[in-house]
Amino acid sequence: MESLKIKPYKKSDHYSYIFGTYSVLRLMEEKPEILKGVLIHSKYDDVHHLIDLCKNNNIPYLISDKTVNRLSDKENIYVIGIFDKYEVKANALQPHIVLVHPSNMGNLGTIIRTADGFNIKNIVIITPAADIFNPKVLRASMGSLFSINFQHFASFSDYQTEFPSHELYPFLLKKALPLEERLKDSSALFSLVFGNESSGLPDEFSQIGKPIKIPQAPTVDSLNLGVAVGIAAYSFAFHHQLISSC
Amino acid sequence: MESLKIKPYKKSDHYSYIFGTYSVLRLMEEKPEILKGVLIHSKYDDVHHLIDLCKNNNIPYLISDKTVNRLSDKENIYVIGIFDKYEVKANALQPHIVLVHPSNMGNLGTIIRTADGFNIKNIVIITPAADIFNPKVLRASMGSLFSINFQHFASFSDYQTEFPSHELYPFLLKKALPLEERLKDSSALFSLVFGNESSGLPDEFSQIGKPIKIPQAPTVDSLNLGVAVGIAAYSFAFHHQLISSC
Repeated sequence: MESLKIKPYKKSDHYSYIFGTYSVLRLMEEKPEILKGVLIHSKYDDVHHLIDLCKNNNIPYLISDKTVNRLSDKENIYVIGIFDKYEVKANALQPHIVLVHPSNMGNLGTIIRTADGFNIKNIVIITPAADIFNPKVLRASMGSLFSINFQHFASFSDYQTEFPSHELYPFLLKKALPLEERLKDSSALFSLVFGNESSGLPDEFSQIGKPIKIPQAPTVDSLNLGVAVGIAAYSFAFHHQLISSC
Repeated sequence: MESLKIKPYKKSDHYSYIFGTYSVLRLMEEKPEILKGVLIHSKYDDVHHLIDLCKNNNIPYLISDKTVNRLSDKENIYVIGIFDKYEVKANALQPHIVLVHPSNMGNLGTIIRTADGFNIKNIVIITPAADIFNPKVLRASMGSLFSINFQHFASFSDYQTEFPSHELYPFLLKKALPLEERLKDSSALFSLVFGNESSGLPDEFSQIGKPIKIPQAPTVDSLNLGVAVGIAAYSFAFHHQLISSC
């Protein structure tokens, strides 16, 4: 770990930081091979157990209040993981959530957490987009990033070319059928497609696949993106029995 | 407006600020009587129209780039409304969303926006809780605060005493029936009850009303609060035809 310069995260770095014990332990369990080191604050209440876990997994650790404080930027953080960036291709046989130019880091993290919670384990991002490895995204994802596949494409047509078998459900505010109606005969190999927080999906998406909308009061401009994805993901996951109701 | 000291928001103030043209125009339409003034940046692209609106509604305005910049804290804001704080009692004949100690301002604002979008126009907050008038809450609510009733109580039992006819649906992670099952024979006079982001609802809520859960993968700790409320609000609103599907 001494070879890494420990400094605030930059998008150009080949590694990033994950904050919080819960997330670090999840990473150690799911992808120990990318966890390069663990930073521990001396106030963490179970230092010995965490050091044992690091030793058992051959992961370097460093107890340094100064380093933890500097990276965590005033927040109440005692454990930080340093990990190598990676990408795992989306699975062609499983449903996807496709985000076209998502820009808000909190939303992106929340969507990852939601997708994981409803067993939709593949997220596709059309760039330009928020940086999925930014610690703010990881914080909002609560460690769920390590349980899903995620893949970036430079355009939506590149995505379509690579995954021609998915039934596409672009979420729009108009020129679309309501969610419950679309659900009835929906494909189990679905792609739920969402636009940017401010601008939504471009108009041409009303000509793609099976346009769909979440019924809502006309007084409201739109739903928050994370909320819209949550409602859609839950509805499709429940309908296609990706989550059990017991 | 000259009589107000224009300084960053404090919880103890009797007024607050709302940022962004969309939200200010909504406030002017919904509750012009509480809008005390409008601050305008000279770069706003439709200054004359906005000034006309202010004049027609007898609302003072001030064009001051310095004031707008100082209040908006680096964000790209051109219009700010100053309004008097108020409270509108929850309606005893309409469904409620009850938040027990919500702490995150972004979540609270998103929940207000969602509730408005699904025509659940009454939000009850059990204190201590995030300050509903903080500009961060208002930003996330996209102006929806002005379209709903909201009422604070010091305890959940105070709320129960004032609204004894509502059927209570506390959202829990265990000891509860799944959402779709609870929906089937649910009351149209419902209260959807949610706990704090970190701690959820205390255990005793499993003995109150009709405990309910959103099915999710066991690997995930829980859903984001805003997402959970979104799924619940959509499901109840759709089931009880508060939103039309056309």
